[in-house]
Amino acid sequence: MATATEADAMRRAMVLAARGLGSTSPNPVVGCVILDPDGRTLGEGWHRRAGGPHAEVEALRAAAGAGHDVRGGTAVVTLEPCNHTGRTGPCAQALIDAGIARVVYAVADPNPVATGGAATLAAAGVDTEGGLLADEAAAGNAAWLTSVLHHRPFVTWKYAATLDGRSAAADGTSRWITSAASRADVHRLRAEADAVVVGSGTLHADDPHLAVRGRPDATQPLRVVADTRATVKPGARVLDDAAPTLVAVAEDADTRHLAGTGGSGNVDVVRLPRAANGPGLDVTALLAALRERGVCSVLLEGGPTLAGSFLAAGAVDRVVGYLAPALLGAGPTALGDAGIGTIAQALRLDVTDVARLGPDLRITATPTAPATVPATEES
Amino acid sequence: MATATEADAMRRAMVLAARGLGSTSPNPVVGCVILDPDGRTLGEGWHRRAGGPHAEVEALRAAAGAGHDVRGGTAVVTLEPCNHTGRTGPCAQALIDAGIARVVYAVADPNPVATGGAATLAAAGVDTEGGLLADEAAAGNAAWLTSVLHHRPFVTWKYAATLDGRSAAADGTSRWITSAASRADVHRLRAEADAVVVGSGTLHADDPHLAVRGRPDATQPLRVVADTRATVKPGARVLDDAAPTLVAVAEDADTRHLAGTGGSGNVDVVRLPRAANGPGLDVTALLAALRERGVCSVLLEGGPTLAGSFLAAGAVDRVVGYLAPALLGAGPTALGDAGIGTIAQALRLDVTDVARLGPDLRITATPTAPATVPATEES
Repeated sequence: MATATEADAMRRAMVLAARGLGSTSPNPVVGCVILDPDGRTLGEGWHRRAGGPHAEVEALRAAAGAGHDVRGGTAVVTLEPCNHTGRTGPCAQALIDAGIARVVYAVADPNPVATGGAATLAAAGVDTEGGLLADEAAAGNAAWLTSVLHHRPFVTWKYAATLDGRSAAADGTSRWITSAASRADVHRLRAEADAVVVGSGTLHADDPHLAVRGRPDATQPLRVVADTRATVKPGARVLDDAAPTLVAVAEDADTRHLAGTGGSGNVDVVRLPRAANGPGLDVTALLAALRERGVCSVLLEGGPTLAGSFLAAGAVDRVVGYLAPALLGAGPTALGDAGIGTIAQALRLDVTDVARLGPDLRITATPTAPATVPATEES
Repeated sequence: MATATEADAMRRAMVLAARGLGSTSPNPVVGCVILDPDGRTLGEGWHRRAGGPHAEVEALRAAAGAGHDVRGGTAVVTLEPCNHTGRTGPCAQALIDAGIARVVYAVADPNPVATGGAATLAAAGVDTEGGLLADEAAAGNAAWLTSVLHHRPFVTWKYAATLDGRSAAADGTSRWITSAASRADVHRLRAEADAVVVGSGTLHADDPHLAVRGRPDATQPLRVVADTRATVKPGARVLDDAAPTLVAVAEDADTRHLAGTGGSGNVDVVRLPRAANGPGLDVTALLAALRERGVCSVLLEGGPTLAGSFLAAGAVDRVVGYLAPALLGAGPTALGDAGIGTIAQALRLDVTDVARLGPDLRITATPTAPATVPATEES
């Protein structure tokens, strides 16, 4: 039975873990706190980037660096310590070697390559307990868990709209529907994602840049344009060298005009099948192509057509809506056709958070059931 | 300088006043608390209905009924005590006669017929102070103050929509977008309003009843149908005898089929000019007709066309949106054309409250500037 002190340390470990969001894929985010037998913190660490030290090793190093003896101590860690030797050694063995007497972790490692750490620890005589605050810790690792368990990236659909659901006015103008505080928060979402995806409609309407601004330490996400007919122009801002870019086009698209773009080799083109039903590319194929490139989390930024295709494909795991307290009464809507014809088919969500960002509201919600294609027989 | 005890009593008086919402028009809502010199409550009262005793008299009676001597006490009241003899005697004189030593009120009475109470009290030697928590008290009396100062009813536009701004699915189905908790809350809004207004589109799509249900003590609002061409059918639910109904039609509408509806004489027809620009009736004329009938507060329940007309006329004072955590991607939008063509003309609001109602969000907002017609020169 974990103690209240260990639960507090686990909450701290989750905060530490979240610092790695956007930089650790294809690895999970992990945080670790080392406690002495009296519950005092000896060291903290988190996994900062793929290829770098794991959280447990960082925490052990921090404790050693501060001159602490961790023998007989407890390691509190958000994920079951790994058991395999990848680019770094196995964490379970590192904890054993350091003389750690007890390990408390939140989420069991579902990765078949890395699992078994708890058994290794127990076999070495370490008092090992899993499941502490597992739901919260799993939510913090939702992107990685989705990629491991469902073999596709975790998708967050972000939109900005007025209270009446418009993403632009009748003449197409949209700067600025939402406040500076909301726009800064979108850069946080980008920094936490491995890829940012837009469709060709948004590309031509807004010429978006899609890189992270205002966060110097952020790992830039892969910028992805779902551009079925390869309409992106060589001078588009999304093709500059601020971040890598992937242009996803149909198998028969003419991409000759893109040869030579991205002088620093940062622009790549992938050919994908078209959607069997509906406009554009096959969403499942697009997500598979991203996963092949190590993408565990996707921020879908629009527009309404692409968002509708993702929702119709059951490929949205989280919705983040920035609602400006404004009314337009006309203009494009934030969401286009998602294959929903009648009220019984509405995609129902649970609101998990409501926040005020300056004058705006940010609403975070997740589908009530596992995301699936709406059942047309319900009509 | 009012004391903290008097401020607490004023907050209590506002709660009491709110109990009269929907039943006192054309009078204001008023609450009153009588304190003894040590700050103990001797009696409470509120204005329950037009023609009934005023709040001060109710509070004096309650104190007397409990055997308390109010001489030397303080009356804390949300509105300046009235000075005129209408259906009831002047409250200022009643307080003087009762031996009240001090009167603390929040909002000065702007009504030219009733004003002067504070001066009468002061002339009689009563220690009189105005302005305590005046902003909060004015907000609680917004409907009445709007009707007195702007010569039109206070208009609340209520809508229910999905997160993407749809009020129904593509096939027109809408039962139920929002939860039972939200729908019950709408009945509270109806009970607090003097009139509930819908357009003919909503009339034919939903056959709404518009009466208050689930609140036995509520005064039924006047049901109003903005029905330019008099298309309402004699069997429509809005024409039953649960509440009075006003059918507003154009001057040239054929209303012969409505003769004999509302057997108990509860259905009235008013002829109004058409809007100079846009569809339907002239909103200003409609509101003037309602004010002539003693209506101080209007709950505008839709649909999108009528809401657009009210917003375009600068005639919405408060917006209450019930947002269901659901997505549709198609179907009618909650708000139709409001004469807004570009983002600079967007009607900007301040969010004054966000509440969770079951799974839904209720967002309350007011226009940032006094409601005016959007300036077309800003485009």
